[in-house]
Amino acid sequence: MSDQKVGFIGLGAMGWPIAGHLAKRFETLVWNRTFAKAEAHAREFGSRAVPLEKIAEAEVIFTCVPVSQDVDDLARALLPHLHPGTLWIDHTSGEPEQAKQTALKLAEQGVRYLDAPLSGGVVGAENARSTVMVGGEAADFERARPFLETYCAKIVHVGPLGAGHAVKAVNNALLAVNLWALSEGMVALVKQGVNPGLALEAINASSGRSNVSENLFPSRVVTRSFPNTFALGLLAKDLGICTDVIEAAGTPAPVLRQVREFFAIAKREIGSSEVDHTAVAQLLERWSGVEIR
Amino acid sequence: MSDQKVGFIGLGAMGWPIAGHLAKRFETLVWNRTFAKAEAHAREFGSRAVPLEKIAEAEVIFTCVPVSQDVDDLARALLPHLHPGTLWIDHTSGEPEQAKQTALKLAEQGVRYLDAPLSGGVVGAENARSTVMVGGEAADFERARPFLETYCAKIVHVGPLGAGHAVKAVNNALLAVNLWALSEGMVALVKQGVNPGLALEAINASSGRSNVSENLFPSRVVTRSFPNTFALGLLAKDLGICTDVIEAAGTPAPVLRQVREFFAIAKREIGSSEVDHTAVAQLLERWSGVEIR
Amino acid sequence: MSDQKVGFIGLGAMGWPIAGHLAKRFETLVWNRTFAKAEAHAREFGSRAVPLEKIAEAEVIFTCVPVSQDVDDLARALLPHLHPGTLWIDHTSGEPEQAKQTALKLAEQGVRYLDAPLSGGVVGAENARSTVMVGGEAADFERARPFLETYCAKIVHVGPLGAGHAVKAVNNALLAVNLWALSEGMVALVKQGVNPGLALEAINASSGRSNVSENLFPSRVVTRSFPNTFALGLLAKDLGICTDVIEAAGTPAPVLRQVREFFAIAKREIGSSEVDHTAVAQLLERWSGVEIR
Amino acid sequence: MSDQKVGFIGLGAMGWPIAGHLAKRFETLVWNRTFAKAEAHAREFGSRAVPLEKIAEAEVIFTCVPVSQDVDDLARALLPHLHPGTLWIDHTSGEPEQAKQTALKLAEQGVRYLDAPLSGGVVGAENARSTVMVGGEAADFERARPFLETYCAKIVHVGPLGAGHAVKAVNNALLAVNLWALSEGMVALVKQGVNPGLALEAINASSGRSNVSENLFPSRVVTRSFPNTFALGLLAKDLGICTDVIEAAGTPAPVLRQVREFFAIAKREIGSSEVDHTAVAQLLERWSGVEIR
Repeated sequence: MSDQKVGFIGLGAMGWPIAGHLAKRFETLVWNRTFAKAEAHAREFGSRAVPLEKIAEAEVIFTCVPVSQDVDDLARALLPHLHPGTLWIDHTSGEPEQAKQTALKLAEQGVRYLDAPLSGGVVGAENARSTVMVGGEAADFERARPFLETYCAKIVHVGPLGAGHAVKAVNNALLAVNLWALSEGMVALVKQGVNPGLALEAINASSGRSNVSENLFPSRVVTRSFPNTFALGLLAKDLGICTDVIEAAGTPAPVLRQVREFFAIAKREIGSSEVDHTAVAQLLERWSGVEIR
Repeated sequence: MSDQKVGFIGLGAMGWPIAGHLAKRFETLVWNRTFAKAEAHAREFGSRAVPLEKIAEAEVIFTCVPVSQDVDDLARALLPHLHPGTLWIDHTSGEPEQAKQTALKLAEQGVRYLDAPLSGGVVGAENARSTVMVGGEAADFERARPFLETYCAKIVHVGPLGAGHAVKAVNNALLAVNLWALSEGMVALVKQGVNPGLALEAINASSGRSNVSENLFPSRVVTRSFPNTFALGLLAKDLGICTDVIEAAGTPAPVLRQVREFFAIAKREIGSSEVDHTAVAQLLERWSGVEIR
Repeated sequence: MSDQKVGFIGLGAMGWPIAGHLAKRFETLVWNRTFAKAEAHAREFGSRAVPLEKIAEAEVIFTCVPVSQDVDDLARALLPHLHPGTLWIDHTSGEPEQAKQTALKLAEQGVRYLDAPLSGGVVGAENARSTVMVGGEAADFERARPFLETYCAKIVHVGPLGAGHAVKAVNNALLAVNLWALSEGMVALVKQGVNPGLALEAINASSGRSNVSENLFPSRVVTRSFPNTFALGLLAKDLGICTDVIEAAGTPAPVLRQVREFFAIAKREIGSSEVDHTAVAQLLERWSGVEIR
Repeated sequence: MSDQKVGFIGLGAMGWPIAGHLAKRFETLVWNRTFAKAEAHAREFGSRAVPLEKIAEAEVIFTCVPVSQDVDDLARALLPHLHPGTLWIDHTSGEPEQAKQTALKLAEQGVRYLDAPLSGGVVGAENARSTVMVGGEAADFERARPFLETYCAKIVHVGPLGAGHAVKAVNNALLAVNLWALSEGMVALVKQGVNPGLALEAINASSGRSNVSENLFPSRVVTRSFPNTFALGLLAKDLGICTDVIEAAGTPAPVLRQVREFFAIAKREIGSSEVDHTAVAQLLERWSGVEIR
């Protein structure tokens, strides 16, 4: 066990197992808005549930919360307690611009910040096989690496501050594009009498394949199981962040922007943000009068 | 060497190696519009270059030509010579409706037809690792299987007559969607200082990955090599066929239709149909003022 | 009263008043699928309700039916009875390609055909102030003019055979575009606290005004009266015809095609084709959580 | 001549004639970044060219500059000199959110602000027939009215602070939508042999007509005169502001957003922001291989 102390804030679906992996190797202080969860984590993983300001004792602080505003609020709350030289690793799927503002504030206290959103879902986190895409300075990235290696199979330093959030947002936008476009194609094929499972088998051995066609559609849509692993509302939020990245870049992106509109419409039409992101297939099904089964 | 005789029409980039594989196992009659190519094929593979009407002697006839109209013309020319019971396997990336008409005409002569477009490109064909998605009757499919196994690693019977062409068209539309959407995302990221190679590394270990992000962008776009393996004009044509499939199905497909428009615009803007399909990345680069390198 | 005899088929919302205007000046034979309507028309306007084949006695035949397929069916039924030299004026909002086929068939009998769809709605038709856009030969157009002047305020010969239907389709697509785009703009403005009636007043004195913003939104949407004057399903059909025109032209039209998809989605979401075309505003309202009032 | 003193900043294409109309009725102080223009205005209209801070002596200050950032800069520069009770009328086609920030700053000095963008172009301004859509408090609006009546034919108070800019942005987005959609429709019609001038004549007597089809296309596009009256770059900027309005409202707007992307692409493709906004028709023409003549 290393003698370095880490602090972990946010014990949700992703944070819980990740903090668990960290606790195996490092002295891990944990905090969660619902504190009972922090106490439960301590009992299960041997971490230490502490008041928020005590997190500042850690040399490396991790945040894994829903949105950048939450991170900013936490930074403000901890600012008076932070020690210079602390490294702040943010696993929130956040907004580049807001993250840069938070980083500036932290820098005034000598705290270093890295945006480090994750991919691989809860399963990846539990199996210590997450992918993390990091934005920030090279020295901070190298310092973070041994910690990230505790639960990540793929660690990539993609660019300067905000680049991690940006790449994550674009990745999730591509997930959304494939979810939507494949649904469009599949309902048309099913309407024409094509067997969807076999169509997917062909596509997945062809040039149009994607993680969506290989790993989401056959196991969740064709089977009609639609497990709830990633909320539609969160993916819609990521599409909004991607739009902000594109807006800041000033580059044309008609398809990504269009898909963002469709997911916003889908949220309204389905009537809930809590359904799984694959529910958009069911919206296309409803508009087409067929089921992809 | 089987005693079955096959006939192969169309010795282009895909047909040449495929007919070569067939010639190793079957007595193969070949014909090509530019007859010299048929003669060259005979010299290299031991096939037999014959006048068009002699192709009708084969028990199984293959067509591998650019468009369904070509197949229809060939069917009309061969009609007086065809024997009942002949199987016609069409490897053209064709149009379902036109193919059904051709199949009806052939059926009047007792000839069975399967639409069996391929994926995997020239490399796949050369290595006998193509994917073939077949539409038509089950009995005809089973009859075709041993021949297809000569050069296909993946053989899928996706549905009734026309279903093969339909699945191929949707597959290629998904290839196009990913090419376009990934280009949109990448130019925005590069504009914001993100390293494109590293961004792709992250995406390819994340939920938004696709064959395009894994096998096309790193080796062709980031390297700037842009090899010419699949003409933009052909992919634009496939998007048109996909639109016809959607039109016939009567299902909504705003994204697939939009991407079709963009590829048509891209053809115009780039000024050529002969450039490689990855050239659309260069169009987004021009519209954005950056290069994905 | 002229001594020329005209025949009028289709006494729906548009046909009824138009045939009535014709009956004031010409001996008018009428036929309708529900024959009782033809008899009622005769009683009200002094026209003559006759069996279908008797319509062929007229020198000028008018069709005012829902779709081109109906016109084609009628042409086939009347073909054995038609006299050479008859002029067929088609007020259906039809499909250019199918109309050209029908015209060819009629030409074999020496019957001249003009596609002459109308704009101006039922009110325009009742007040003899319709607009008619005509496709076909100049000589036929000139021959038709005196008849059209009976109920049209604006008569334009827009081009060769099919051009009338094409212009009508594009016109109705522009109506649809404005309905949709203005709804998008208005819900955003209302969400931000802007008074919709006053916003429309400003827009209608500005460069972004249209027939939709001037004559549809204030009187139907802001008032919430939504009178049913033109079915959503018919406008969606016209958008389909416009798409066919664009497809035949081979020109890019991303916005017109996109709006066509949205109207198809709107039909599904609203759950009826019979609601008024302005109902799309209510769909945007539902997606936005506000009302344009 | 009223004894009220007004100050006018920004003597560009719109400001020059408007300040001229004001000068006929009020003592008008003028300032322009290129001061020689202010001096020329004084010579022509009897206004008084003064240093910037002297503008603060006016009871009513007008700004007519390209973007909201310019207005904000001017407000900061004048802040130390402004008297409480001054009314600031902003004719810039601005951004609602930034304007609200500027208004807050001015309010600290007791200065009242109205966003009051104009429509009607240079011709409208010269002929004192502009349309002005105003956002802000009712009392301020009533106080502004007699001044606006000097050069406006249509004065509408559309909502609270920012509403004027928002309505202007939506109006200009609708102008852009009609410019683009009509171009799409017209190139398809011309490709099919339809006479564009006659098609427009029909459309302009039909339900799909707009200010664009009535007043821009016949006189500028069909004639090929393409006079430069409103830069493409400015209209693209307005579409960006409209996007911000939609973003702030959180309502779906797939068509308005798509048109914004196309205008951004058009700027790149045409290679200049300075061409007239109707140049987008020429881009559709290039993509279609026809001219709308």
